[in-house]
Amino acid sequence: MPSVFCSERRVEFCETDAAGIAHFSSLIIYMEQAEHALLRSLGLSVASSSFGASWPRVRVECDFISPAKFEDVLSLQTTIALLGTKSVTYQHRLSIGSTVIATGKVTSVCCSRLDGSMTSIIIPPHIRELLIQYVGATVG
Amino acid sequence: MPSVFCSERRVEFCETDAAGIAHFSSLIIYMEQAEHALLRSLGLSVASSSFGASWPRVRVECDFISPAKFEDVLSLQTTIALLGTKSVTYQHRLSIGSTVIATGKVTSVCCSRLDGSMTSIIIPPHIRELLIQYVGATVG
Amino acid sequence: MPSVFCSERRVEFCETDAAGIAHFSSLIIYMEQAEHALLRSLGLSVASSSFGASWPRVRVECDFISPAKFEDVLSLQTTIALLGTKSVTYQHRLSIGSTVIATGKVTSVCCSRLDGSMTSIIIPPHIRELLIQYVGATVG
Amino acid sequence: MPSVFCSERRVEFCETDAAGIAHFSSLIIYMEQAEHALLRSLGLSVASSSFGASWPRVRVECDFISPAKFEDVLSLQTTIALLGTKSVTYQHRLSIGSTVIATGKVTSVCCSRLDGSMTSIIIPPHIRELLIQYVGATVG
Repeated sequence: MPSVFCSERRVEFCETDAAGIAHFSSLIIYMEQAEHALLRSLGLSVASSSFGASWPRVRVECDFISPAKFEDVLSLQTTIALLGTKSVTYQHRLSIGSTVIATGKVTSVCCSRLDGSMTSIIIPPHIRELLIQYVGATVG
Repeated sequence: MPSVFCSERRVEFCETDAAGIAHFSSLIIYMEQAEHALLRSLGLSVASSSFGASWPRVRVECDFISPAKFEDVLSLQTTIALLGTKSVTYQHRLSIGSTVIATGKVTSVCCSRLDGSMTSIIIPPHIRELLIQYVGATVG
Repeated sequence: MPSVFCSERRVEFCETDAAGIAHFSSLIIYMEQAEHALLRSLGLSVASSSFGASWPRVRVECDFISPAKFEDVLSLQTTIALLGTKSVTYQHRLSIGSTVIATGKVTSVCCSRLDGSMTSIIIPPHIRELLIQYVGATVG
Repeated sequence: MPSVFCSERRVEFCETDAAGIAHFSSLIIYMEQAEHALLRSLGLSVASSSFGASWPRVRVECDFISPAKFEDVLSLQTTIALLGTKSVTYQHRLSIGSTVIATGKVTSVCCSRLDGSMTSIIIPPHIRELLIQYVGATVG
């Protein structure tokens, strides 16, 4: 059965803007942090990856539905909408209780950076196997 | 004839990340800054708006095509893809010379905040008239 | 006996820079977040303060001793170096194991913003009483 | 006669916070950007330095005197308070007209990163010669 990766994030003061709410870019950054937390939970740290892989983003698509304020604690639900050969499209939902704050899809490409530059590579089988549990769940 | 609003932005050091390139969220923020620069050029400062309007973002959609590095100077081209009754969808292209760095669509909703909260309102006619020159141009 | 407020913070990817380490401004922001966490632990949320107080910073002084990297988990120790009539000077130490990453002193002034603007006020007695436990401890 | 390096910076929306003003960390970042602009004006880009040098910060000391708001244009005056053997201490003053917004001192150490890690080195003579013009001026 498909899993949903759940994490939490408190809105920090420096992430708010003069409109009194979390700046929209902060919400997008929370989605990146959820992706990193998911990878970390699988032992696939972006930083320490033994094969020198990294996951640059190639596409972001977000809807901002309700505002979040300083010190609000957001629940993040993350699944995988599409597990491609070389890329992963994550789906995120940020909410406070039953209020949806934002939803988003972020596509990251598996890249090798062994040689200093970044080249897209086929997702290694042991990574694909770990990610597959998050495919197919729905976060709305 | 439709206009393209052009601006420039140098990648600052704090906007780069450990992959050695401008963090993707910086590129999205550049798009917001281009929108604000466009409004400012029309005398429609987000801050000093006489009728207390603001333009919260409700949707962002970006493709990251090539990396940008510290001190790269990006050219931003901005047009209006859709001028709705209450919202504006801006289209942005960030490039360095002939290399496209990122493209994006950002939808902002015209809101009144006279009363402390934010309510969407019909874009006032004098603002619509100023924005209309950017409708219909193509930035690729 | 004086207390030390302890918190933890993981370095996020967007907080690193092209030198491959946490940008110095991120470490300063962690100090602000530790201050807010300390206030929150005392029931003194910056946001929801019943008397409309806020604590703008008037002085920051930091030494950056060792670099921190993406996904490093920093231990933050926070005490109060000086509890003034209207201001608090926090002292912070960020470390990873026995390695000190940064130390800093941050002075925040108690301000009322009931009337829209900010005016410094004498720290209310019930707040002073809560803060006093952190005065006099040493974090090196 | 000692020179003052002058630059300008507009407060962007994402740099403001829920108190309606530029977040204090933004003002510190402006100081870093002024330092980089000064180096760039001397042909000493941090990024493209031919001898692989970089200038990590080891100390920051700032006073925040008046708030700055969204779209305020700040004047930055930068001089060198101390030109050490291996380090430079810059002095910055940020102002709007005759109102001082913030002052700060930032110490950066000349480091070699040819070998992947960072080691402090003696400032090369040709760089010292270029910097010396900014020593001894006063920015208040």
